[in-house]
Formats: sequence, structure tokens, C-alpha cells
Amino acid sequence: MTYIRLDKLRAIYKPQLPEVLEHPTKLDVSTNAATPDERIAALFPHTAQLPVVSLAEAGAEAEATSPLTVGVLLSGGQAPGGHNVIAGIFDALKMHHPASILYGFIMGPGGLLRGEARELTADVINCYRNTGGFDMIGSDRTKLETKEQFEQVLLHAHRLALDALVVIGGDDSNTNAALLAEYCRSVNDPLCVVGCPKTIDGDLKNGWVETSFGFDTCVKVYAELVGNIQRDCYSSKKYWHFVKLMGRSASHLTLECALMTQPTVAIISEEVAARGLTLGDLVRQLADVIVDRSRRGMDFGVVLIPEGLIEFVPKVRRLIASLNRVLAENGHKLHLVKESQIINYIASKLSDEDEETLRSLPEEVARQLALERDPHGNVQVSRIETESLIVTLLGQELEKRRSQGEFEGNPSPLTHFFGYEGRCSMPSNFDASYCYALGRTAVALAKEGCSGYMATVGNLVHPPKEWIPRGIPLTEMLTIEERNGVDKPVIAKALVDIEGAPFRYFRDHRKEWAEGIAFRYPGPIQYFGPSAVCDATTITLRLEHALEPEEDIETIW
Amino acid sequence: MTYIRLDKLRAIYKPQLPEVLEHPTKLDVSTNAATPDERIAALFPHTAQLPVVSLAEAGAEAEATSPLTVGVLLSGGQAPGGHNVIAGIFDALKMHHPASILYGFIMGPGGLLRGEARELTADVINCYRNTGGFDMIGSDRTKLETKEQFEQVLLHAHRLALDALVVIGGDDSNTNAALLAEYCRSVNDPLCVVGCPKTIDGDLKNGWVETSFGFDTCVKVYAELVGNIQRDCYSSKKYWHFVKLMGRSASHLTLECALMTQPTVAIISEEVAARGLTLGDLVRQLADVIVDRSRRGMDFGVVLIPEGLIEFVPKVRRLIASLNRVLAENGHKLHLVKESQIINYIASKLSDEDEETLRSLPEEVARQLALERDPHGNVQVSRIETESLIVTLLGQELEKRRSQGEFEGNPSPLTHFFGYEGRCSMPSNFDASYCYALGRTAVALAKEGCSGYMATVGNLVHPPKEWIPRGIPLTEMLTIEERNGVDKPVIAKALVDIEGAPFRYFRDHRKEWAEGIAFRYPGPIQYFGPSAVCDATTITLRLEHALEPEEDIETIW
Repeated sequence: MTYIRLDKLRAIYKPQLPEVLEHPTKLDVSTNAATPDERIAALFPHTAQLPVVSLAEAGAEAEATSPLTVGVLLSGGQAPGGHNVIAGIFDALKMHHPASILYGFIMGPGGLLRGEARELTADVINCYRNTGGFDMIGSDRTKLETKEQFEQVLLHAHRLALDALVVIGGDDSNTNAALLAEYCRSVNDPLCVVGCPKTIDGDLKNGWVETSFGFDTCVKVYAELVGNIQRDCYSSKKYWHFVKLMGRSASHLTLECALMTQPTVAIISEEVAARGLTLGDLVRQLADVIVDRSRRGMDFGVVLIPEGLIEFVPKVRRLIASLNRVLAENGHKLHLVKESQIINYIASKLSDEDEETLRSLPEEVARQLALERDPHGNVQVSRIETESLIVTLLGQELEKRRSQGEFEGNPSPLTHFFGYEGRCSMPSNFDASYCYALGRTAVALAKEGCSGYMATVGNLVHPPKEWIPRGIPLTEMLTIEERNGVDKPVIAKALVDIEGAPFRYFRDHRKEWAEGIAFRYPGPIQYFGPSAVCDATTITLRLEHALEPEEDIETIW
Repeated sequence: MTYIRLDKLRAIYKPQLPEVLEHPTKLDVSTNAATPDERIAALFPHTAQLPVVSLAEAGAEAEATSPLTVGVLLSGGQAPGGHNVIAGIFDALKMHHPASILYGFIMGPGGLLRGEARELTADVINCYRNTGGFDMIGSDRTKLETKEQFEQVLLHAHRLALDALVVIGGDDSNTNAALLAEYCRSVNDPLCVVGCPKTIDGDLKNGWVETSFGFDTCVKVYAELVGNIQRDCYSSKKYWHFVKLMGRSASHLTLECALMTQPTVAIISEEVAARGLTLGDLVRQLADVIVDRSRRGMDFGVVLIPEGLIEFVPKVRRLIASLNRVLAENGHKLHLVKESQIINYIASKLSDEDEETLRSLPEEVARQLALERDPHGNVQVSRIETESLIVTLLGQELEKRRSQGEFEGNPSPLTHFFGYEGRCSMPSNFDASYCYALGRTAVALAKEGCSGYMATVGNLVHPPKEWIPRGIPLTEMLTIEERNGVDKPVIAKALVDIEGAPFRYFRDHRKEWAEGIAFRYPGPIQYFGPSAVCDATTITLRLEHALEPEEDIETIW
């Protein structure tokens, strides 16, 4: 029997389009911009008062066009669908005028600064349609924020005769796009800068951006794996699985994964912060669940843990800040301290409360926190294996309860970390279409010279035909935050809203999940089946738009 | 837009059937059994001379039937499709006679010995069609091999009035099924015992069994994840990923995964054993690849490692045997030895060669090997994190080369272990249909009183319609092996044949994979697309049947 690889077949998938993008578009300036924060207005005198723009069918008004030259770059961590944004840009450019040119900057903003670009022709683009990864042109994490960098960018933009630059990235990259757009206008340079909202973490989200691309696919891969582990857990009935999920700055991935799989327990960092919980509180709550289930014959379960958890534990967050300060002040003396005394030495410089927090951690973790530094001299929080830390502390708590006669179970703990498994997976139909529409929208904005805009597509819980592409002034999303003692314009990271519908749904059901077996097994992403299985997006988005989390199968007959 | 969970839709999938199973069947005793090994004939006087049987359409000969009562159990590790074997048994029983009854023994052979059974009615079965896991009735690893156990089995079989017992398991479980069948005949008990070939490891495979069920699904899940990691690796260009894959006793999973994903390097345990490689040899070969790629600007790659690797390294295997002996002889004295001297003490009892092997290991691994024992007092090889061991040794080797000026790269190593992620996943269309056909075949054998048989389905690289169900006498697969000094009948585990077509294909291509970027990204299992994408089985099976590993997309238009 014939065997064809899925990726070969995906290459010819046609993303589904919002109706308005099926024809040439014109701008529809329907909305005035809200008045931005005064400080933003002062920092962005040329781009702070732009209107929100929609697209409308150009109809008979469509005029003869001239070719456009556009550069595109991918910034930061990979997210499924990045290649489709580029494919959308490419197709829109060629529809606009066949002589239009698209350049891709190699290895992200760094490549832009070096002026390393490659023309992206149909041959290249066609190899990457509907594929995961960022390998078409690569990315990096270089920040673009200084005047010198912007001048360098304009040098290369002029050399390549760029009309526009599309920056595909997260909150920081889009903030930088806003700064660059403002800089261009301030020096009367016509380069048009447009951003696209990318991040698997789902934390680039606001009144204008319903979800960032990549989140949908990535969370579905994690949910597939968590579901498989739950089935294994329920079959063998002897393990507790502790699954850490990628996403340091917010817990959207963990929350959505919990909504899709209904694990025994899911920890949401934002709730831990809001309730001021300690690691000890968390561990005691987990132990309560484990002991209770064990008494009822269920020595098994699955716990989801967001990667960024420990930075959300208020006491640990304070300790980290204190350690950064202590190490900055005393780092040069550390080599004088005996190896065996180094933790005591550092502890002696901390407040009593910080010292208590440090000593409550397993020694290995305390050493890691106290001694491992990143190139900027900061504590390397990301190196801490949170899932193992929880398992260690939980082991101690359960032994205590055992010695008090409260616990007789003997479950084996297993840990997992899912990150790289999902970040570059083949985009779901949703992300494939969403990203393609973002690329098409970016060009619709660029050809009208809409600089300082983010390309967005809304109405995403409805079928793609009904999606609404829009251009949103980047300044609309900016606020001022203090970073390292300096006020900076930033796009605020959207944390999980513990008053929002997705968290409330989780909160209303988690007791039942913890007490019984409510496991769900979502299975792998499907590309070809009934639309209700293949095309719908996340439960988070559905709940945020007041839809039921899912429908019964009868609805599709 | 409507959202339906995939698992809800899978519940109504109809497995594809071999043509002969679409109608009532009769036996076709076309082949005489080969004469088994004399020692097998002596051990199995009643069941060693059975013929191979095929199935044919019963046609007009189909007679009035009476109800059957059958018990079924799942044995050993979970494998995708187990529930479909049971569904196949159930449907076949009800087609045979609506008053037939199916019992499931709870938690495996242990449940059989305890007589813990549950009637499996349509309500139960329908909840589990095409689902992963073994949670319908659970499983365990109890061995059934003694006369006392067999008598216990017969007691419960009589109480439930069983006509037949179907044992779904791996090589050991099917060996035990053969022993039980022989025992029944020897005491003139009419209980019919039938086995079904299960194991994700793919090592239950021989002239009669093309592949065991679960392997197809499980390896596709691992290949999805390895492909995603490869895409990530190629996008970020700074990591070497070391991925350990489940499967201790053979490397079929790793080999098939390599054929599907074309990683930079895949280690096949059977080749390591055949070529007598040491861990040092392996690490130097890996370092050669890393250094060579680094020189050519590629500080990244993906390495697949089979879980059982270190037991296949001849020197380590000898060391483990020696350690087991030394610890058995001296274990009672160990508490007299100072903690810091314990490795030296054990080493002093070893041969020079074994001592050298022990001391070549990182200290932590040496301690694990030397000191951690399972309940039988044996070395706990499965606890060794082979992927981390390789990374540690490789780090030392690369530092050496760096100090000699041969290496200037700075790749970051990341490790992964995929096991629980695949073992209980939703069965692929292939496994769903294969398992269902196995269940149907098991009943076709049971109703004719074919005891001591394994239900098999062959011709699997062709469409399901053309599959060939057969009953194979279990004794056909048995050989004699010495285990703990005693000759025992066993079904030999099928290791990767390094002269076989799958390994040869790998060997012929691996240089090209190691030198360049040949990564493939198979993506997730699909259930609904074109048959060429959704229904085909593994590349291993295709190569073993002289088919091309894959076809071009044009072939399906």
C-alpha cells in the first residue's frame, strides 16, 4: 500500500482566508485611536495618534500598482506558523505586483543589523508552506532599541531599497518595532514598519490581539502528550506524573492544557502570586490531594506545573531579588569563602525572611540559586528544575505524614518537561490560516504606508471566512514600566487573569478533577477530518468569547 | 465555530477488516506444523504437533451455533490497540451468538489468579473502541508458570464457565499461554487458550508474526516528537539533542524512528554488541561527528539512543554480570565498608578488565551500578540515565579535543526521554484495524477449540482487505533458553537484524545524515486524510517486504 509522508501533503494545504482578503483591499479608517498615556504620547510624537484601520474590498477603486520591496525577520523563540506569515507576505506582495520583492533577514534582528538578507523566491517559500520551525531564515534574540542600531537598520533598508519591514515577534520585538517606526518618522525616512504577534506562551494578548500565533498548535501538542501520559497513568495506576510545561512569563499554556486534559492538579502561577502562597503551601496542598486519593485507592495522578512557577512565589521572587543584590555587592569576595561555607556566607547577608526561604529549599537548589549566574550576573532561575524541586519537597512532606500515620501510599513520582517538543511542530489548521492571514494583512498595511502598526486578525473563534483583519497602532498597546530603574515603553505581558472566564472554569471544576478521574485524552492535531475537529482553536479563546468549551458529537451530523 | 474532541469522533471509527473476516469463518488446515525442536516436543507432548490454520469463508456450511463464554486479560506494559483486540473479541462473540459472554480479568494475570473478573458488555466496550491505554481492565506483570497457578486459573475458569481464555501479551505472556494450554490438555480440561502478540518494543516478531501491535502507533508518536525537536534544532542551530527512546530489549523503536526522521546519529544497540564496541568507542565516534559538523559551522544535531543501550555494550554487560555475582557473594559485608571506600572495595573483587570498565564510568553512574539493587538483588540497569551518561562522557571527550586544539564549538546538550508519551496513545488506523482483526481471529480460533495458538494477521504492508488472519501453534515459536541456570521454553526476543533490510537502509544512509541536514518532520498521526497518509504502517515493515520506504505525493492523485 502507498505511503506518503504527512509533511509532503501539508505542503499543498491552502490556508483558509478571511473573506475580505479574497480581493484587493483598501483601508477603512473607521476608528480613532484612543488617546494614549501621556508619557507614551511624549515618547512617540509621530506615531502615538494613529487611527485603528480595518480593511475593505477595494472593488472598482483598485488602481494600478507599482512593485513593493519588503524585508521580513523572525525574532525570539520559534512558534508554529512563522513560515506561513512569510508565505502570506510573499503571496500578498506578488498579488499586489508580480515584480515585488521579499527579503528575509537571516537569523533574526542580528541579521538585520548585519544586513544579511536573502531574497525569498517562490521556490523557497513553497518549500516551507504550512511547516513548523523558523528554519527558513532563522531567528535570534538581539534587541533593537538604540539610535545606532536604527541607523544601521536604515542603512541596510536603503541598500535593499525596502519599502517596508515586517517584524514577527513577541512583546519586546513589537515594542522595538514601535520604536523603530517612530525613529523612521522622526528622521523623515519612509520605511514602513509593521509588527506581527508571535509567541507560544500566549502572553501577547490584549483588547486588540485575541491570541498570539503558535499558542494554538503548541498547546495542542502538549495536550496530546499530557493526555497520553494520563492514559498511561490511569492504566498502570501506580505513578504520579509531574509535567512541567514551557512558558516562563505566564501560565496560559498550562491553563489551556488543563482545560483540554483535565489533570488531577494544575498549578497556575498567577494564582500562586495573587494568593501569596509559599512553596510550602503549594506542597502541602499537593500532599493533601495525594493523601486523599491514596486513602480512596488511587495512588496515581498527573500534575501540571508552569515553567515560570517559582518566580511567581512571592517569597522566592523576593529572595531572587535579594540574591541578585547580595551577589552584585559581594560577588568579588566569594572566592575568599570556603566552598562548604558559601551558602552560610550568602545567607548571612540576607534578611531573616529571605534566609528562611533559602534554607527551606533542598540544598542543591539553594546552591544553584545562590551561585549560578547568567552573563549579566543574575540568578539563573530557568536552570532550576521546578518539577524535581516540587517532587523533592513533596517527598519530604509525604514522609512526614507517613510517620504521623496519615499516609500509607507508595506512589512513584515521574517528571517530564515539554518544551522543544511543541515549539516547532507543524502548525495546526488554525495557526496555518491565522498566520497566513497575518502576513496578508501586514502587506495590506505596508502598501498603504501604515507604519508603526501591528497586523492583527480578530473574531478567531468563528470560521476563518468571518475573521477580521485590522491594523492596530503599536502605541495603543504600550505602557510604561520600570525596568532596571529606568522607565521604558513596553507592551505589557498578559498574565492569566484569575477573574477571567478560562481560569474561572478551571477553578469551578478542579475539585472534581482532583478527587476523581476526569482525565481527557485529546490525541494528536488533525489536519483533514471534520472541521469541528481540525479547525477550532483553544478552549481558552472559546471561554473568553462565552462559548461552551466543547460541543457534543451530535452537533456535527 | 463548533469544536468536537477527536477522541469523541474516534469512538465511532470502524476498523478496516480483512475480507475473510467479513463473513462467518471456518478453519482451513492447509499447513502441517513444522516439527518442533525435540526438547519443545518433549515439554509440550499435547500441543507441539498442531497444524497452522487459516480461515476461510464458512459459506452455506455455517451451522447453528451455541453461545461461547470467553475470558480475556491484558499482560505487561501498555500498547496502543489493546482495547481494540478486546472489542474485536466482543464483536466476534456476539456475531457468533448474541448470548455469548465476555469477561475481562482485572489488572492482568494477577486478576486471573484472584478470579477478579468483570463482564464486558456493549456499554463498556463502546466506551473504549479505538482508544489507547489498558484502563478498560488494566494489566500487571504477574508470571503464570507454575502448576499451582494453572490449577487456580482452571478453578476460576470453571466457576465462570469459560470456554476460552485470550491472553494479550508479549513474548513471556505468550510462552505462559503455551504452558497453560499444554497443562489444560494434560489434565483433559477443555479450556481453550489463545494468545495475541502485543508489545510496543517490536521484539515479538518472527516468521509468523510480522509485527506486534502497538509498535506502529508508539513509534509514530516518538517520530512526531523527534521530528519536532529536529525542526527546533535546525531553527535555533545551537543545541545537540540526545533523545532516549523506550525499548530495553531491542532497538526496533529507535531504528524505525531513525528511518522516519533521519536524525544526525542513531545508535542501534544490536550493532554495538555485534561490533564489540565500548562506551569509549561510541563516545569517540559521536565526538568525531560533532567536531566535523562544528568545523563546517553546524554546532547542532540530534542523536537517538535506545533505552537498552548499555546492556548491549559487551564490556558493560560483563561488568553487570560480575557485579551481580560480587554483590551476591559479598553483599552481606558491605555495611562494614566505609562509605567512601565502597567503590574501591567492590572494584577489588572484580577482574582487571571489569574494574577498568567500572572506573571508566562517571562516579555517580558507577555508584548507581554498584550499589542500587532491585528486589531480586540485581543491578538496576534501567535506573541508569543512558542519555545523561553519554552526554557526560562526551563532554569529557570534547574538552580533551578542545585542549588539543581540535574543537572550537560550543554546542549546548539537551536530553529527552520518550516513553510514557507514546505507550498509551490513541491507536493509529493501522493498529486500530490490526488489533480489531486480532481479536476477531482469536474468537475464530477459540470457537473451533484451537487451544495453544496465537492469533496472527499477516500481509500487513498491503491494504487491510488483503490481510491474512491465521492461527499459529505457540510451540512453533518456542525455543529453549537457559535462564538462571535452568533450561526454559521461551519465545526468543527478535532483536534488530543487522543484516536485515531496515538496518541496511539505515547503514547505507547514515553517513549522509551525519554530515548534512537530512532531518524529516513526520508530524502527528492522522486518522482522516488520504489513505496513503493515514493507513500505511512502518518503514521497517515496508523495507522488510521489499517496498520503497515511501512514495512521492504524485502517486496519490
